[in-house]
Amino acid sequence: MSVKRINVGPRMSDVVVHNGVAYLAGKVPGDTSGDIGAQTADVLKQIDQLLAQAGTSKSNLLRAEIFMTDIKEFAGMNKVWDAWVDGKATPARATIECKLARPEFKIEIMVIAAVP
Amino acid sequence: MSVKRINVGPRMSDVVVHNGVAYLAGKVPGDTSGDIGAQTADVLKQIDQLLAQAGTSKSNLLRAEIFMTDIKEFAGMNKVWDAWVDGKATPARATIECKLARPEFKIEIMVIAAVP
Amino acid sequence: MSVKRINVGPRMSDVVVHNGVAYLAGKVPGDTSGDIGAQTADVLKQIDQLLAQAGTSKSNLLRAEIFMTDIKEFAGMNKVWDAWVDGKATPARATIECKLARPEFKIEIMVIAAVP
Repeated sequence: MSVKRINVGPRMSDVVVHNGVAYLAGKVPGDTSGDIGAQTADVLKQIDQLLAQAGTSKSNLLRAEIFMTDIKEFAGMNKVWDAWVDGKATPARATIECKLARPEFKIEIMVIAAVP
Repeated sequence: MSVKRINVGPRMSDVVVHNGVAYLAGKVPGDTSGDIGAQTADVLKQIDQLLAQAGTSKSNLLRAEIFMTDIKEFAGMNKVWDAWVDGKATPARATIECKLARPEFKIEIMVIAAVP
Repeated sequence: MSVKRINVGPRMSDVVVHNGVAYLAGKVPGDTSGDIGAQTADVLKQIDQLLAQAGTSKSNLLRAEIFMTDIKEFAGMNKVWDAWVDGKATPARATIECKLARPEFKIEIMVIAAVP
């Protein structure tokens, strides 16, 4: 039951793995010049990379929380999400509208995944 | 440590069970015609049903996040919550105000429960 | 895999421990007269105490969600957070702006920790 961390910073870690569960930090877009589709794809690509570093993948997602700054962009986010997620192994999910740490972020996604 | 899913959709699953923990999706009211009390009761009834499908119950709740579109309705939500929850086995809980996927939703609740 | 609860109230519990993981309730400031720094310190002190009651500490944090009523106070919160957290064992974290249960609360923090 030891704890393993990936990309440990002084404020937060990108991933914390404990007891077969990987807890990912809320990820925001690296490139904020794009629309909701581009920003969602940017975030999901980062999540793919972090899941791989933790020895798992999107097919093992347990739970996802999606934070959007404009819920009217819900369909635009979902279009990218639906194409990305493993349709036979989707996580529990919630989506809410709230403000994020920087006004240029349109989306932040925080997931939990099983590590096989 | 295999993962079991209930009501798997192409976008999300209603429940994901892993390692003795059931992660439920954020549930919104099926009937949005009612006030905060009616909408809260609607959501909690759905959660009861999903917990039962996962082989557990509200007496095994670990954590609950409550998302409300109008925090001034906090007392109205709590009245229904307090009557529903197992008072000897209450979960860790947080409640915040935010916008939800559709304007007619007054509440969304996302829980985690132990599966005995 | 039994469930242990700390400070069980009729509405929520302060801590629920299951399978080596402690789920804490969202904690708000006991004293709301101070600025964001004082309110953050107030909340983190409560979290320290609850983690100790659960047999763990901030060095075992897995995940933290920070809810702030004014994201423009992000730097003020982080100053206190950065000084508090174990810099070699930081959790996965997300911070969002939303309204909280009472207008005098500037911050609410909800964490999960491993229990060694």
